[in-house]
Amino acid sequence: MAMNKKERVAVLGAGSWGTALAIVLADNGHEVRLWSHNREQVTELNEQHTNKRYLPDVMLPENIFGYHLLEEALVGVEIVVLAVPTKAVREVLQQVKEVKTDSFMVVHVSKGIEPDTHLRVSEVITDELPEELCRDIVVLSGPSHAEEVSLRQPTTVTAAAENMQAAERVQDLFMNQNFRVYTNEDVVGVEIGGALKNIIALAAGISDGLEYGDNAKAALITRGLAEIARLGAKMGANPLTFSGLTGIGDLIVTCTSVHSRNWRAGNMLGKGYKLEEVLDNMGMVVEGVRTTRAAYQLSEKYGVKMPITKALYRVLFEGQHPKEAVDELMARVKTHEMEDLVDFTKENN
Amino acid sequence: MAMNKKERVAVLGAGSWGTALAIVLADNGHEVRLWSHNREQVTELNEQHTNKRYLPDVMLPENIFGYHLLEEALVGVEIVVLAVPTKAVREVLQQVKEVKTDSFMVVHVSKGIEPDTHLRVSEVITDELPEELCRDIVVLSGPSHAEEVSLRQPTTVTAAAENMQAAERVQDLFMNQNFRVYTNEDVVGVEIGGALKNIIALAAGISDGLEYGDNAKAALITRGLAEIARLGAKMGANPLTFSGLTGIGDLIVTCTSVHSRNWRAGNMLGKGYKLEEVLDNMGMVVEGVRTTRAAYQLSEKYGVKMPITKALYRVLFEGQHPKEAVDELMARVKTHEMEDLVDFTKENN
Repeated sequence: MAMNKKERVAVLGAGSWGTALAIVLADNGHEVRLWSHNREQVTELNEQHTNKRYLPDVMLPENIFGYHLLEEALVGVEIVVLAVPTKAVREVLQQVKEVKTDSFMVVHVSKGIEPDTHLRVSEVITDELPEELCRDIVVLSGPSHAEEVSLRQPTTVTAAAENMQAAERVQDLFMNQNFRVYTNEDVVGVEIGGALKNIIALAAGISDGLEYGDNAKAALITRGLAEIARLGAKMGANPLTFSGLTGIGDLIVTCTSVHSRNWRAGNMLGKGYKLEEVLDNMGMVVEGVRTTRAAYQLSEKYGVKMPITKALYRVLFEGQHPKEAVDELMARVKTHEMEDLVDFTKENN
Repeated sequence: MAMNKKERVAVLGAGSWGTALAIVLADNGHEVRLWSHNREQVTELNEQHTNKRYLPDVMLPENIFGYHLLEEALVGVEIVVLAVPTKAVREVLQQVKEVKTDSFMVVHVSKGIEPDTHLRVSEVITDELPEELCRDIVVLSGPSHAEEVSLRQPTTVTAAAENMQAAERVQDLFMNQNFRVYTNEDVVGVEIGGALKNIIALAAGISDGLEYGDNAKAALITRGLAEIARLGAKMGANPLTFSGLTGIGDLIVTCTSVHSRNWRAGNMLGKGYKLEEVLDNMGMVVEGVRTTRAAYQLSEKYGVKMPITKALYRVLFEGQHPKEAVDELMARVKTHEMEDLVDFTKENN
């Protein structure tokens, strides 16, 4: 384990992913402050060194300290890992702003696009934190089930930032024998890929629900990724990012995991259930449903053809039958596979 | 079903894929001559309209005609679909050359690289057939289990050729409501992707055999595809092709199918079996083993870094323990995710 400076790091959010990242940091010898708004969870972290609700099978290293008060967790901290649900990002940042006076760097691990504003998470952070307080924003993303990371199974992720020195600092912070960190300067591509993969998981689920087989699912995943890359390129991303860990890599993990809520919701839609029935049955947020709406609106705004997203939008919000939607996709005019890719390569050069 | 001219087409090879493609052509109203060297199979094709050994669940359309004599199958045919195993390609072409005097187009669907010569299949065809006899070569590839195609489940493939008019003729020939054909002019990329995907399936199997989890497997698939794209670019391919149906699309089908011989062989290696034991146990060719050697030699020849291929080569041919190989992959120097991609983008522009 090659490591440089020992740092003091605050991880905000003690869900499964925040806790798994705290373990990586602790394994690397850093002082880790794991903040949770749940007082009992903090007591468990400090007294039992466990987080049974989110990572039932793991003992936590002793250099992870639970904090319940944000002002205490943030004292003297230069690096803040933001690991709260996407919808809680603004609220937590507002609390951070109230107590923190010395500047710091934010590492965020949230995937999503803010409804209505269509802001990416790093844009929400810029929107909330003044530049003199938050010097750099780094997004950490990639194919990574938290459970596997907590069990020290081999995992690779990408640290992306506009400022490569910040990305490299995060790389040094997390990198070890089990957890390999690549750097990338394409923040837009990494964030768009992470957010929009849920649309494809939903589409893959629908295809399976219709019993359309592996060929159809592979086609939806591949062409879905292509249209996301097309939108991303229009928004300023490097199209090659979508072929990397935060694009296809994360997508493979999402579409092959039986635990994916998005795939399960799609599967029910494919079997003929209505959206309301599916959402009632799931009893929790299906991120891909919200993201489909955002992606559809973005495709209109940027004038990008996204046939799979559009078909999914019609199924979700306009009551079209999934089979009809897939048949329409298959019947589209003949296409040169590269034509859209060639388009955006031209635009970007 | 929008169709143009009715053609007379010879499909050489009545295995599962040749027969499935014959069904697509027959559905489109063409006259299909399905050639097999097995006389009993030809009788079955013509009398029972079935091919029980390869596609047990399907009745064949009546405009598929079985042929046992190549000279009869090829009379008046302008389009020859070559659907024999890669290792039989040269031999069959030599027979074709002996009987065929009028010129034709070859559509090939074979995946592999010729050992020793390292020729792609289209290069083998060029090597065997004089230009005045074989006017055009089109490669048809993509995520396509034959069984699903024969059951008319939605499938997408790519027709690639240097001459786009030839690719478009093949697109018109096969395209229908269930079978969507894209065109692409990147023959090198399509052939390299199809051949080298088996290396990744082998690596994915090893990772699963080591019980390394979804994160590690997704990383191997993603980074494996990146290094194949790197080699392909050096050989003249468009790197974006590897993000398409014949790259990531075909790879997804291969790595998620329980029937993949390559994945199964890798899985046994990961569990600690020696290569000879694995090959004995499988009792048939594991294409990825042969391809790993070819890819390793190509990486040396073209000076392309292929760490996953190299690690696999050491495991297969130099007796390195798979766990040690994976650990070495994880411990490699820090890397910028895009650096190699940026390299080849520069080279290609």
